[in-house]
Amino acid sequence: MSFTILSKDKETAARLGVIETQHGSVPTPVFMPVGTQGTVKALTHRTVEELGADIILGNTYHLYLRPGHELIREFGGLHKFISWNKPILTDSGGFQVFSMSDLNKVTEEGVKFSSHIDGSKHMLTPEKSIEIQQALGSDIIMAFDECTPYPATEQQTLESLNLTTRWAHRCRDAFNKESGSLLFGIVQGGMFPTLRTKSSHELQEIDFDGFALGGLSVGEPKDLMFEIIDHTVPTLPEGKPHYLMGAGMPADIVKAVALGIDMFDCVLPTRNARNGYVFTESGKMIIKHAKYRMDSNPLDIDCQCYTCRNFSRAYLRHLFQSGEITAAILLTIHNLYFYLDLIRQIRESLQSGNFYEWYKENLPRYEEGYKG
Amino acid sequence: MSFTILSKDKETAARLGVIETQHGSVPTPVFMPVGTQGTVKALTHRTVEELGADIILGNTYHLYLRPGHELIREFGGLHKFISWNKPILTDSGGFQVFSMSDLNKVTEEGVKFSSHIDGSKHMLTPEKSIEIQQALGSDIIMAFDECTPYPATEQQTLESLNLTTRWAHRCRDAFNKESGSLLFGIVQGGMFPTLRTKSSHELQEIDFDGFALGGLSVGEPKDLMFEIIDHTVPTLPEGKPHYLMGAGMPADIVKAVALGIDMFDCVLPTRNARNGYVFTESGKMIIKHAKYRMDSNPLDIDCQCYTCRNFSRAYLRHLFQSGEITAAILLTIHNLYFYLDLIRQIRESLQSGNFYEWYKENLPRYEEGYKG
Repeated sequence: MSFTILSKDKETAARLGVIETQHGSVPTPVFMPVGTQGTVKALTHRTVEELGADIILGNTYHLYLRPGHELIREFGGLHKFISWNKPILTDSGGFQVFSMSDLNKVTEEGVKFSSHIDGSKHMLTPEKSIEIQQALGSDIIMAFDECTPYPATEQQTLESLNLTTRWAHRCRDAFNKESGSLLFGIVQGGMFPTLRTKSSHELQEIDFDGFALGGLSVGEPKDLMFEIIDHTVPTLPEGKPHYLMGAGMPADIVKAVALGIDMFDCVLPTRNARNGYVFTESGKMIIKHAKYRMDSNPLDIDCQCYTCRNFSRAYLRHLFQSGEITAAILLTIHNLYFYLDLIRQIRESLQSGNFYEWYKENLPRYEEGYKG
Repeated sequence: MSFTILSKDKETAARLGVIETQHGSVPTPVFMPVGTQGTVKALTHRTVEELGADIILGNTYHLYLRPGHELIREFGGLHKFISWNKPILTDSGGFQVFSMSDLNKVTEEGVKFSSHIDGSKHMLTPEKSIEIQQALGSDIIMAFDECTPYPATEQQTLESLNLTTRWAHRCRDAFNKESGSLLFGIVQGGMFPTLRTKSSHELQEIDFDGFALGGLSVGEPKDLMFEIIDHTVPTLPEGKPHYLMGAGMPADIVKAVALGIDMFDCVLPTRNARNGYVFTESGKMIIKHAKYRMDSNPLDIDCQCYTCRNFSRAYLRHLFQSGEITAAILLTIHNLYFYLDLIRQIRESLQSGNFYEWYKENLPRYEEGYKG
């Protein structure tokens, strides 16, 4: 059994759990920093570990194109190539193929695309995606799916989810269970509850170790996203991990945990840091604003991260305005600490049985602080 | 007494010493990482300290323009503003005014220039340079000098050094000795030994705590630079620190120590790291070269830095080729470790009385490995 639920919240659908992988345990709910090309941007692994990350995410699309999965295979897998000994989850490459590459054609077989780096032509199929992820030696492998765009008609969404289901079977067939990796399926179905249920049930006929919600955070209103999450999670097996891909803002994470989501990944803490957007307990902070010019306070008054324990807003603003790489490092440390601390607080409240109190006390602040 | 010579090498002019500053002791010979705008580029202070840096250099020109010395003064000085508690040396701003800004005019009074950031007009004088450096609370303040360009005629060089001498007096007069900072003079005189002697003697009539050799590494042949160092150092007071500004390559440092130089600063380890140029014990390494694509060795086989203890050339090449900030971080860690370890080896050999053996054994390798 790769997933154990340690406790369930009485008032919400939130759960405290642990996922066992080849490279160690992952306590859930978990936030996974994104390490697109084999590193969390602007950090060393040592810093990522010190910040408390239990698992990072790698991008199949990027690693396949550069340095190439065959090279990584020769090094004994991604863990060895990048010298990261904790768990790694890899996505299927599908999302980047649809969003980043010069897309050529989607067929029953798979997706033809041109590399965003050099224009070279490639074909990603369910079998190829699994082959790449197994070459990488990923601890958690994601099935290759079609991410249904928003908006889409019911008919388009149905056809897309049917393709995802057929691809899911091919992924499972291509997957070598002996590898010790876990394989997760991805529920599609767009904004149609009946189609979400259909996708969920069809995927459960396949032997997956966990289930992700795909095709969300693709431009739909937030309320609609939460309606779909609220509808879909109860259709999933309770005893398997539930993963909301690519989310989200702090309030999104808090709300999704209450709806029964166990796993999150998001580029916001790291990408926003490089753009000078700081996550704080009292809301967003744009560090370049002139009001921070003489501000001797830390980014977040009570934060215990290295950046907040040592540096003022004025200094960080100066580094950012000066284009110093050190600004990206220090702001990334803070933002990632913020996210990892948020999920740690959530786990602690679940552990002590007062998640719903924590939720009611903190959610309004996270909703208020990041409007607009 | 701010400088103590602990031992002198029998075969060369090398010395082991210690400089006492308000923020602690600096063992010499010392290499000072350059922290231009209040940070060593691509590193956090914690990493710089762990690498063993005993002092960093700040640039008066940059800090004056951004964030401004008055802001830093209000924060209680540069140490407090940037949260670095070890010694800081600041340059006078002269070199950057001549090399980076849109230079308007050099007069007896000082230098008019336009900011490279926004074109705003400024005037830097000996008094202003000292005022800025004292507002920064620098531990070692450099006199404002005119860096004589290369080539220059004897007459041009004479006039330039005379101006430097007059400015040196004005710097000393403007300097508040009660501040506890140290004030260093800068010897000019271009490539003319008699003029170097003249400059050296004139500056010694002023009460300086140390002496730097300026106007070197400005385009002259290496042999000529060493002739001038070899000529000038013996004209300086033995009991004061000797500082070779802006040097140099590993072999330059080794040779200059043998000629009696105690202090070095240079952007090469940090700047070259960001460009993928790696310093190793067996010579330079251009990390993007295809031959490192599958290379599982560390950058430098016996190096004990974080980068070499954890990561392969192939991984570092991948990060560099992918444009990851983490490449800049990891290569900077290695290059700076290389320089700080080099100077540590030099100090240890002086301590144990076998510097000349160390010199003969290692210099050829450093000369050979960095040709061209």
